[in-house]
Amino acid sequence: MGNDNFETPEGFLFAVAEASIKKPGKKDLAIIYTAEPSAAAGVFTKNRVKAAPVVIDAKRMRKSKGQAIIVNSGNANACTGEQGMKDALMMSRRVAELLKIDEEDVFVCSTGVIGTPLPMDRIIPKLDEAVQNLGKATLNDVAEAIMTTDTFAKKASTSFKVKGAKAVLAGVAKGAGMISPNMATTLGLFVTDLSIASSSLKATLKESVEQSFNRIVVDGEMSTNDTVLILANGMAKNETVTDGTEELKVFRAAFDGLSSDLAKMIVKDGEGATKIFTIHLKGAGKEKEALKFARSVARSPLVKTAVYGNDPNWGRIVTALGYAGPTFNHAKMDIFIGPVKIVSSGITTNRDLEAVEILKKKEFDITIDLKSGHAMVSMLTCDLTEEYIKINSEYKT
Amino acid sequence: MGNDNFETPEGFLFAVAEASIKKPGKKDLAIIYTAEPSAAAGVFTKNRVKAAPVVIDAKRMRKSKGQAIIVNSGNANACTGEQGMKDALMMSRRVAELLKIDEEDVFVCSTGVIGTPLPMDRIIPKLDEAVQNLGKATLNDVAEAIMTTDTFAKKASTSFKVKGAKAVLAGVAKGAGMISPNMATTLGLFVTDLSIASSSLKATLKESVEQSFNRIVVDGEMSTNDTVLILANGMAKNETVTDGTEELKVFRAAFDGLSSDLAKMIVKDGEGATKIFTIHLKGAGKEKEALKFARSVARSPLVKTAVYGNDPNWGRIVTALGYAGPTFNHAKMDIFIGPVKIVSSGITTNRDLEAVEILKKKEFDITIDLKSGHAMVSMLTCDLTEEYIKINSEYKT
Repeated sequence: MGNDNFETPEGFLFAVAEASIKKPGKKDLAIIYTAEPSAAAGVFTKNRVKAAPVVIDAKRMRKSKGQAIIVNSGNANACTGEQGMKDALMMSRRVAELLKIDEEDVFVCSTGVIGTPLPMDRIIPKLDEAVQNLGKATLNDVAEAIMTTDTFAKKASTSFKVKGAKAVLAGVAKGAGMISPNMATTLGLFVTDLSIASSSLKATLKESVEQSFNRIVVDGEMSTNDTVLILANGMAKNETVTDGTEELKVFRAAFDGLSSDLAKMIVKDGEGATKIFTIHLKGAGKEKEALKFARSVARSPLVKTAVYGNDPNWGRIVTALGYAGPTFNHAKMDIFIGPVKIVSSGITTNRDLEAVEILKKKEFDITIDLKSGHAMVSMLTCDLTEEYIKINSEYKT
Repeated sequence: MGNDNFETPEGFLFAVAEASIKKPGKKDLAIIYTAEPSAAAGVFTKNRVKAAPVVIDAKRMRKSKGQAIIVNSGNANACTGEQGMKDALMMSRRVAELLKIDEEDVFVCSTGVIGTPLPMDRIIPKLDEAVQNLGKATLNDVAEAIMTTDTFAKKASTSFKVKGAKAVLAGVAKGAGMISPNMATTLGLFVTDLSIASSSLKATLKESVEQSFNRIVVDGEMSTNDTVLILANGMAKNETVTDGTEELKVFRAAFDGLSSDLAKMIVKDGEGATKIFTIHLKGAGKEKEALKFARSVARSPLVKTAVYGNDPNWGRIVTALGYAGPTFNHAKMDIFIGPVKIVSSGITTNRDLEAVEILKKKEFDITIDLKSGHAMVSMLTCDLTEEYIKINSEYKT
């Protein structure tokens, strides 16, 4: 996914460095930079506890512009008090000084362990090194540098035409654990050379993230650091895309595709996951209710372990629907595993053996039709395995 | 727990039988019966999807009286449509015929796999056998007969004096998976020889369950069959206990103790659990908020796996508090693992190594003080291990 024909938008430079925040031999710092003053947009965690860099970025994003992103992995700089704020500010200030740009145009992201101060003595000298090396790394190096428990780097790119001009959109993501709506990923960083009005960029990012990163579940956790950022530097030289235009729809479609691809990679790389499945919740009265039902099923450890064990135990699906919150008539409901209808009007169809064959696949759909309305949503999730436990009980110590 | 000095209240008879619903060699039917017309009370699952026996019992409980409970394990008779209702009614009707009592005075409980019709051809003949054998089994046999993935039978008993008369209260529970507020256990069945007004019995059951069975979490799931029932047959010959009396307080205290003991056994036997811990959430503005915070931490797979791995990863606790819903100031918060203060005013105290020693214990407390109010709750939970995954991915297939 995303490895073939990988394109990077014009005018962006990348650098990575090793500051010994993660294990030796692993890159853990990355810089994304464009010399062009760029439109910028961001979406941030809804967790009440926000890491220092999230607080800073959310504030800086009010101006809807920026030129650089400095990221570290291995340490989330969350729950680190005043020192954490100072450290995050110092990181972005140092990068701004070296790049000779306004400090307010630098966004800072951190991901990793919570509650431990950043090792600033090791980070600061590496910022100098990284800035000196700008342009020597690729976006793929950035994708690798932001990994924590991820088993593969997540990147994707696409190109599209707006009134004859060709624009490129590329992105990287970091996922693995703490994956649930809202937000879905700890980090998603996008760059494009499209010229676009900042209000259009902001709306596109927000709506598209809602349909991609916010429609996936790994373990139902929501991190303190979840951040999706985009910089649009206008180097594609197109007539600036604005609200209500056909060109904005083209960009939106490109963004939807790319963010869905990255979101899917995050679920595929869910900690310990052996398979991914999409829950299509149909026939609910309201979309808000459909989301509650779908999330409840996607989060249920009993559903996720049943899927892991190839067990078409639809009773667990019904149970999770039942405690989701909204009312529904379970005597009307149909459930399909792949194309196999295993529940018809609330009762078994005795087709469990056929469903087992679907569950053995690496990717499939579970469709739940409540037959009580027209709202529907889809939610992508993964199974829950012993490996998830292993990874998360050994993570820090 | 509860094995020593086990007493059974006067006038209750027990029977068990094997109807081949579970694996061969396992008892899976039980009857509890008293010849005395008894006060009865019940609390039922808040899951929107209620199993057939829950629907029947909730209706019959409106009369606040009863004489018998018929329970089967291995099959929940949930999501079984009209046939399920017919089967549950037939089970209780047959027991009523054999016992020559009113059908409305029989409660029926089922626990086990969802979505499969009960094997009535095997159950019905065994009801005859069970009724014939009434008195040959003990409450411990009942505790064993209602087990599903439980690894030990859960029973407890206590006695107390009310104005010179001695009364006994005993109970059994079935737990293991699908354990979360509200309700906490799949089944909790209590019997007492106390003479008590049905309104007092009902209030006591409801309030006490709220503080015991509804304050435990194994996996955050809530079943379609959760039921707690109590029969009080008055054989203790005490002056009937009524509302607003000292005697009711004595009974309430006895019931609180017993239901807490049983609830604790359920968590201890949480699927795959290696240790149990109590989350004390202090300093919240309102009890409702305190409950949301405590449940969010108790349900978090990342907190539960960290505890399993003896990892004092308090960042995961803060993360779970942050997505619980209510606002709070994390810069004011203290967190203790056992007596070790690991977070002071939102920042690490660097006492992780001391906390690791606490986490290695089989039972300990985690205290979170938000310092923003006077509300507090306690929630008992367990760790999340590879064994939970193993049990639940192999449960049915």
